[in-house]
Amino acid sequence: MDDPTNAFIPGPRVRIEGATHGPLHGLTFAAKDLFDVAGHPTGGGNHDWARTNPVPTRHAWAVQTLLDAGATLIGKTITDEVSLGILGENAFDGTPLNSKAPDRVPGGSSSGSAAAVAAGLCDTALGTDTGGSVRVPASFCGLYGIRPTHGRLELSGMLPQAPMSDTTGWFARDPETFARVSSVMLGEEIPATLPSHLIVAVDAFGFADAEVAAALRPMVDRLAALIGSARDELMAPQGLSVWSRAQRTLQPVEAWQTFRPWVERDNPRMAFNVARGLVAGSMIGEAEREWAGLMRQEARGRMAYLLPPGTILCLPTTPFPAPKKGLPLAVLNLLRARISCLCSHGGLTGVPQVSLPGAAVEGVPIGLSIVGGRGSDATLVAVARAMAGSRYVA
Amino acid sequence: MDDPTNAFIPGPRVRIEGATHGPLHGLTFAAKDLFDVAGHPTGGGNHDWARTNPVPTRHAWAVQTLLDAGATLIGKTITDEVSLGILGENAFDGTPLNSKAPDRVPGGSSSGSAAAVAAGLCDTALGTDTGGSVRVPASFCGLYGIRPTHGRLELSGMLPQAPMSDTTGWFARDPETFARVSSVMLGEEIPATLPSHLIVAVDAFGFADAEVAAALRPMVDRLAALIGSARDELMAPQGLSVWSRAQRTLQPVEAWQTFRPWVERDNPRMAFNVARGLVAGSMIGEAEREWAGLMRQEARGRMAYLLPPGTILCLPTTPFPAPKKGLPLAVLNLLRARISCLCSHGGLTGVPQVSLPGAAVEGVPIGLSIVGGRGSDATLVAVARAMAGSRYVA
Repeated sequence: MDDPTNAFIPGPRVRIEGATHGPLHGLTFAAKDLFDVAGHPTGGGNHDWARTNPVPTRHAWAVQTLLDAGATLIGKTITDEVSLGILGENAFDGTPLNSKAPDRVPGGSSSGSAAAVAAGLCDTALGTDTGGSVRVPASFCGLYGIRPTHGRLELSGMLPQAPMSDTTGWFARDPETFARVSSVMLGEEIPATLPSHLIVAVDAFGFADAEVAAALRPMVDRLAALIGSARDELMAPQGLSVWSRAQRTLQPVEAWQTFRPWVERDNPRMAFNVARGLVAGSMIGEAEREWAGLMRQEARGRMAYLLPPGTILCLPTTPFPAPKKGLPLAVLNLLRARISCLCSHGGLTGVPQVSLPGAAVEGVPIGLSIVGGRGSDATLVAVARAMAGSRYVA
Repeated sequence: MDDPTNAFIPGPRVRIEGATHGPLHGLTFAAKDLFDVAGHPTGGGNHDWARTNPVPTRHAWAVQTLLDAGATLIGKTITDEVSLGILGENAFDGTPLNSKAPDRVPGGSSSGSAAAVAAGLCDTALGTDTGGSVRVPASFCGLYGIRPTHGRLELSGMLPQAPMSDTTGWFARDPETFARVSSVMLGEEIPATLPSHLIVAVDAFGFADAEVAAALRPMVDRLAALIGSARDELMAPQGLSVWSRAQRTLQPVEAWQTFRPWVERDNPRMAFNVARGLVAGSMIGEAEREWAGLMRQEARGRMAYLLPPGTILCLPTTPFPAPKKGLPLAVLNLLRARISCLCSHGGLTGVPQVSLPGAAVEGVPIGLSIVGGRGSDATLVAVARAMAGSRYVA
């Protein structure tokens, strides 16, 4: 099968028909190659992972859930190596196409899933989001994407990275498909009632490029009109970079715990930058970990205070649109650090987040995110649907 | 003398009658074994301290002040080793009883003083508070406890730990005794006028266990009704864990300066965790100390800004009620780290604080603290007295 988008993993494309009845009957989906499909090796974005790990005998929960609801699996998609990447350039499998900006990266680590949906090759696709791996490609590729409440969905059959932060998310091009899939995955109707209070995270807008904040302004105005009220607040009074520092302490420590047995047993070949990240995670000291855990506690308290039921918050999903492909490592690492400042609240506090398409800087997409309190996932999807409806009204 | 509470130090109990006239005549008190009593060795919670230090020839200022006011000293109480502990488990002298929760620690380092008052063995008791050593046992044992403005009271004859943070405090079971003793110790009438503005430290409530915040809610509501206004504010915009980090840099450095000559001269036997704390203090680098000093300056500025005359702030004294006795060291150290996030503002900024009893989580006491600007000690005591009066009104 020819694949000009380079969204799918190399080799024959797996296809499994969905149930003949169900709310998603007629839809197609792809699964990031971190999700198990029975009888097919899980690649994990690293060629030694499949070689050194058993072929799964059961579908991952997320795959099974979509199949049971009637959706048909049409392939597995490229991911950054063992989900340790945020830009979508895999040293071994290449870079999936960002259809809306072909000279740009698609974002990662759910790069192929975003690319496949953006190119119209399937209706929805599964990704994972530990530190931004659904939200960032959604922003860069101009898609709807969700990071659900941490701990809400079953993660069995999903290759883990940092269990305190890991989630399963998904993408869609249009709000109705996004709502249909979300309702099935969340096991909950998408409500008709919208929140009544909107917080604009002024620290996050201030941290983003000025052109991004300007490009998102009309969407924020529409959102405020839809919700009926808006107020400015700091999301992270201690500092977005401080929350990021805490998450970039806790997450690599956990990632090292996750992958250490594999690394020590199988000595896998990895891209230098991925290996460096794992080594760095192994060297973080106890005092720093302790502090990061306390800051996580503070951040959780902050989100619980800001986001009672009926209140949502908005921020730019990423501080800039998709960067050019093939930038030098030093530049990429700086960009990753900036992205982390706008994404770390997810892994740190576990709140759900939806990235909405609809804005662009010089033609390159940029997402606006909405965040709610723990468990408010379906409400965020409702807002996403209502925003799309309001586009032609406001 | 039999002592089922294990509040008092081993051996014959010291007793010194108070003056025959005075505002505290008829009251009894105990003194933490960090305060000098003339003719009796000061134990300091470490069996080598008394052996290697001279027997004092004068009473500590705080002891003399209470005796002069008519109170009678009835004993010296167990303390965490050289005040380096916050939970109240002394490896050599055991754990004083928490009368309201016998399977729980009493809190430290003024553990025996809190235990003696809580058990009704005396009316008040002297403690010291550098990083929470009066406030924490007050919270855990369900007592009134005060940490006065740093530098306000004379500390002569009190075994020091970290002079930039050390204070002398005291406990009582009831608000009238608390006010009488406070008036004598502060050398000031307890005023009739109450503050007119209350700040609810939302970061601190968000950091505490959710059950603690819920349990304290009725007290906060009564306090707001008493003061007549309340608003939400962050106490530590830079982060409670950041203030804690600064204090846990500055305090151990000073503690090492304080105890280093003794350690190097006498090689005392210490509990591992206490020795580890001193060693850690000896190894903190200059850059970290410099940063911590700057953060202290910021924290002081924040408190001065938040707390002009007429404004007080409330927060949970501790993030959780007294933990079970005998937990493993790794767990205890994490609990200490969390406690420090709600207590470090005291040692860092020098503001006075009173912990009020009156709430519980599953029957275990938890304190609500009120904090005022420097010098507002008597006003805080007035609020404590008024709160007790309002209990039956609101």
